[in-house]
Amino acid sequence: MKSNLLSNIQNPADLRLLTEAELPQVAQELRQFIIDVVSVKEGHLGASLGVIELTIALHYVFNTPDDLLVWDVGHQAYGHKILTERKEIFHTNRQIGGISGFPKRAESIYDTFGVGHSSTSISAALGMAIASKLKGDTNKQHIAVIGDASIASGMAFEGLNHAGVTDANILVVLNDNAIGIDPSVGALKQYLTSVKNGKNPKQNNMIKSLNFDYTGPIDGHDFPALIKELKRLKKIKGPKFLHIVTTKGKGLQQAEENQVKYHAPGKFDAATGEIHLKAEENLPPKYQDVFGLTILDLARKNEKIIGITPAMPSGSSLKFMMDEIPERAFDVGIAEQHAVTLAAGMATQGMIVYCNIYSTFLQRAYDQVIHDVALQNLPVIFCLDRAGLVGEDGATHHGVFDIAYLRAIPNLIIYAPRNEIALQNILYTAQLGLKNPIAIRYPRGRGVLPNWEVENFRQYENIKIGAATCLKTGTKTAILTTGTIGNNVTLALAECNNPETIAHYDFPFIKPLDFKLLNNILTDFNTIITVEDGTINGGFGSAILEFAAANNFNNSIQILGIPDTFIEHGTVDQLQQFCKIDVKSLANLFSYQGK
Amino acid sequence: MKSNLLSNIQNPADLRLLTEAELPQVAQELRQFIIDVVSVKEGHLGASLGVIELTIALHYVFNTPDDLLVWDVGHQAYGHKILTERKEIFHTNRQIGGISGFPKRAESIYDTFGVGHSSTSISAALGMAIASKLKGDTNKQHIAVIGDASIASGMAFEGLNHAGVTDANILVVLNDNAIGIDPSVGALKQYLTSVKNGKNPKQNNMIKSLNFDYTGPIDGHDFPALIKELKRLKKIKGPKFLHIVTTKGKGLQQAEENQVKYHAPGKFDAATGEIHLKAEENLPPKYQDVFGLTILDLARKNEKIIGITPAMPSGSSLKFMMDEIPERAFDVGIAEQHAVTLAAGMATQGMIVYCNIYSTFLQRAYDQVIHDVALQNLPVIFCLDRAGLVGEDGATHHGVFDIAYLRAIPNLIIYAPRNEIALQNILYTAQLGLKNPIAIRYPRGRGVLPNWEVENFRQYENIKIGAATCLKTGTKTAILTTGTIGNNVTLALAECNNPETIAHYDFPFIKPLDFKLLNNILTDFNTIITVEDGTINGGFGSAILEFAAANNFNNSIQILGIPDTFIEHGTVDQLQQFCKIDVKSLANLFSYQGK
Repeated sequence: MKSNLLSNIQNPADLRLLTEAELPQVAQELRQFIIDVVSVKEGHLGASLGVIELTIALHYVFNTPDDLLVWDVGHQAYGHKILTERKEIFHTNRQIGGISGFPKRAESIYDTFGVGHSSTSISAALGMAIASKLKGDTNKQHIAVIGDASIASGMAFEGLNHAGVTDANILVVLNDNAIGIDPSVGALKQYLTSVKNGKNPKQNNMIKSLNFDYTGPIDGHDFPALIKELKRLKKIKGPKFLHIVTTKGKGLQQAEENQVKYHAPGKFDAATGEIHLKAEENLPPKYQDVFGLTILDLARKNEKIIGITPAMPSGSSLKFMMDEIPERAFDVGIAEQHAVTLAAGMATQGMIVYCNIYSTFLQRAYDQVIHDVALQNLPVIFCLDRAGLVGEDGATHHGVFDIAYLRAIPNLIIYAPRNEIALQNILYTAQLGLKNPIAIRYPRGRGVLPNWEVENFRQYENIKIGAATCLKTGTKTAILTTGTIGNNVTLALAECNNPETIAHYDFPFIKPLDFKLLNNILTDFNTIITVEDGTINGGFGSAILEFAAANNFNNSIQILGIPDTFIEHGTVDQLQQFCKIDVKSLANLFSYQGK
Repeated sequence: MKSNLLSNIQNPADLRLLTEAELPQVAQELRQFIIDVVSVKEGHLGASLGVIELTIALHYVFNTPDDLLVWDVGHQAYGHKILTERKEIFHTNRQIGGISGFPKRAESIYDTFGVGHSSTSISAALGMAIASKLKGDTNKQHIAVIGDASIASGMAFEGLNHAGVTDANILVVLNDNAIGIDPSVGALKQYLTSVKNGKNPKQNNMIKSLNFDYTGPIDGHDFPALIKELKRLKKIKGPKFLHIVTTKGKGLQQAEENQVKYHAPGKFDAATGEIHLKAEENLPPKYQDVFGLTILDLARKNEKIIGITPAMPSGSSLKFMMDEIPERAFDVGIAEQHAVTLAAGMATQGMIVYCNIYSTFLQRAYDQVIHDVALQNLPVIFCLDRAGLVGEDGATHHGVFDIAYLRAIPNLIIYAPRNEIALQNILYTAQLGLKNPIAIRYPRGRGVLPNWEVENFRQYENIKIGAATCLKTGTKTAILTTGTIGNNVTLALAECNNPETIAHYDFPFIKPLDFKLLNNILTDFNTIITVEDGTINGGFGSAILEFAAANNFNNSIQILGIPDTFIEHGTVDQLQQFCKIDVKSLANLFSYQGK
């Protein structure tokens, strides 16, 4: 397709020079632009394709950046980025030094609020709207675009509940496509579906009950309808709510038909939509699949086992269990707080609950972990997926705070498996009558054992709680690692010039620590180096320091991990280099130890 | 009043032996019992008086403890405790070694789920209900009693949203009294009020939209109506919702008329309801009032200043500003997540936002602090009230995790004032163009300067970010403290037998640390003792250890603080003794240092 219009649009002001009749062509070109780039560079696809018309209409009708536009989550903001002065650099999306995959304040004046986690947009836009009103700006509009999966999260309800008693100029656009990353769930989703199907009389409107000026549902791909309604809403003061219906993946047949897969399809053929399959032979399994296969296998044998995911059945691989044992595997939607306390409630009745939440999203349920689980010492099994550096999703998504924020909680066991076998075995051990809650943190992506499924899967071994092990002996320096970052150390030891001087210990239990072994190590080695893929502040290394201080050791202890700064996006290896915990940096450090 | 019936009731089985006609007398006796004890022993009053009939009716109709009853928050559970085998020990309420002021699993089989923080009951009861169903128990009922302030919190919505698509036997009882600790706010509250006033036709029901079998509103003090409806609901499977209307403080005239004051009135006259005023002359001010007076004073002069509280206008003393400058002081209800991101949204527009949240409740908004504030480096001012040990509210409410969970967050400044002057001055400094977010943590209760308001209030001084100070010189040992616990050290130094050997440094900035002074201290003193009222794991002392390790110091460093266990209820002094950070324990330790 020949691009005529998009090439002349640098920013929304250019867009507003066009006639309404030209907008469908802009939409077609914008869609193709996204497909062309994402098919090669990867990234999130379906969400942005679904809101092309909405994106254009919002920037066409509203006076961005003076009117303030907040995108919830931000998976859907590629069109927005391209229309707001980032078309030429869009191909750097999610690459180190390139633009972020999410709206980001530091990147553009059009990105009014950084996002990544869901359901923040209403609160943020309301804050802006109240501020504008206090500054005497009564014409400015503040728009939150939020999906039906995100609006079901408690935080969004809190924002609506407050907005409804203000006279702030806030417009909430509900982008209802019945899917987040996986299909939406819950009673609100059923309600919205009934509204869309005309089964709810207008007077019975939940949103109107919260004092919003509600309109909808309207077709979010229908430019005339969208623009007419947005123009009308632009003139109305106070809280407004527009319900639009869209199709995720709109405009690419495969993406419409297979919305989960095309959320972030990887590389694909821009013309046919066909996904380029990577050669997967002899690759180690993903940790997610180790979790998914293992919990399914354990649940088959133990009827007390329950799995919970807040809206990540595919991402976590809990889907395996959901497909086979749906009555015991729950997708509760984007509701981390509920997920944790639901698990606690189940645990009071003797159920063995695996609550799988991405490390970065467990931040949403920190209080529930403390107050509802650990304080009552209920043996809930938290599976913290995507712990450590996650790569291209960047600063909003790294799971690097969990060791620090969990380590302060009494009663909680914290475990980081070094490989697939350790993950499988701790999942097994956790259902053998554990008396405490446990958090098991493991990274995104593939492990290190290509033959795990053939050679190790189902060969369970009971793990002794609190036990650390020596992976390699040495004479001068002891390296203490926790979790999969230990594999970097193993590789670095093979590369360094003095491996015989360096011992390596695996401390999968961050809490409780193996005090006996630690005591021996601190007695035997003057120099200790700890390595983790969590924050240096308050993390695993700090736990070692605390033990050493409490027991009057005065060894030299060096802590490697995530420094006290937010880590941006890039490949995991690039980010590890930045943190000096990649194999090469470690090998250099170790070589220096020998001197 | 002569007690006839209550004296024969040890547990709900006894209650069920009575006729319905006898229940009003039980209610009268139970009310008087609570008034008699709380008037002398203190505690929460109004909430329990308001649900006397509901409490009796629930235990009368349902087969507790087989049917599972969850009280949200738990302020209202005194009647429940007295009817469930704790009448004889109710006078030990909230005292060290006595019963907890909240339902607590370890205390009674009738306390099915520990509470304290709000809005957990629906999730917990749903978890129990799903577990019962999986275990094949289809007759058991699971009841969550939740107030209208608590149900407006996002977590409760998440629970409702999930429950509505299950067939679990859950009954949500909405105890609608239009007040939490302070009067309820928000659009949902307005909606509920309109329902109560008959202004909403039945078919327009928000709860029905979420698939619940809704009945109400009914008078929650009307035994026949309550019991008839509960009996009907007991037989119904699946999710049910009963909306009852009650009066907080019911039965004690003053408590009905002044509901905020009688939430927890302290000692009062059981006959007249008159509160026993304490002699307040020459007492230091509450830190809450230092905050409240100072923010009001600053806000009068600076139109950009905004105050936010999630449902604690009285407790935080933000009420002073709300009364005088209501357009810039917001009670957003029990919505900590929203409060934080609302503040972030306002900060993007240049407003200076003081977001006052109790330390223990900021756990509810941990992700928002990281993702919406710190990551974007928005200079929101968090005022963490009730940091440290809070005393009688106990394990659910201590603000002891904040240093550890906040210290891992990049960009964030963490400050703990040592006294009223420091709190006033940091509040002043924070609005002078700070470039980073800041968390200011201070304890519940009174400070140390009786004449602060006369001598110091409004005498602002700019605090240098990151600066620590020497409070006392010494020759051998350096004590490093942060926050008001430093006052214990000052007193202990006056009591110990070797004060000349001991130096005392105040580190109000936990982050950034005063690296220069710290370097000098570590150079000058072999022995360091740190003291804080936060967790030893990952806290202030750990920050000192991290600095020492990173800079190759090998001093002896002893960390005092909250040990790795949940701290129960008691007076603050009793709990400090348990943690060995009370004046006497510190004086003993210091005396030992001299030897």
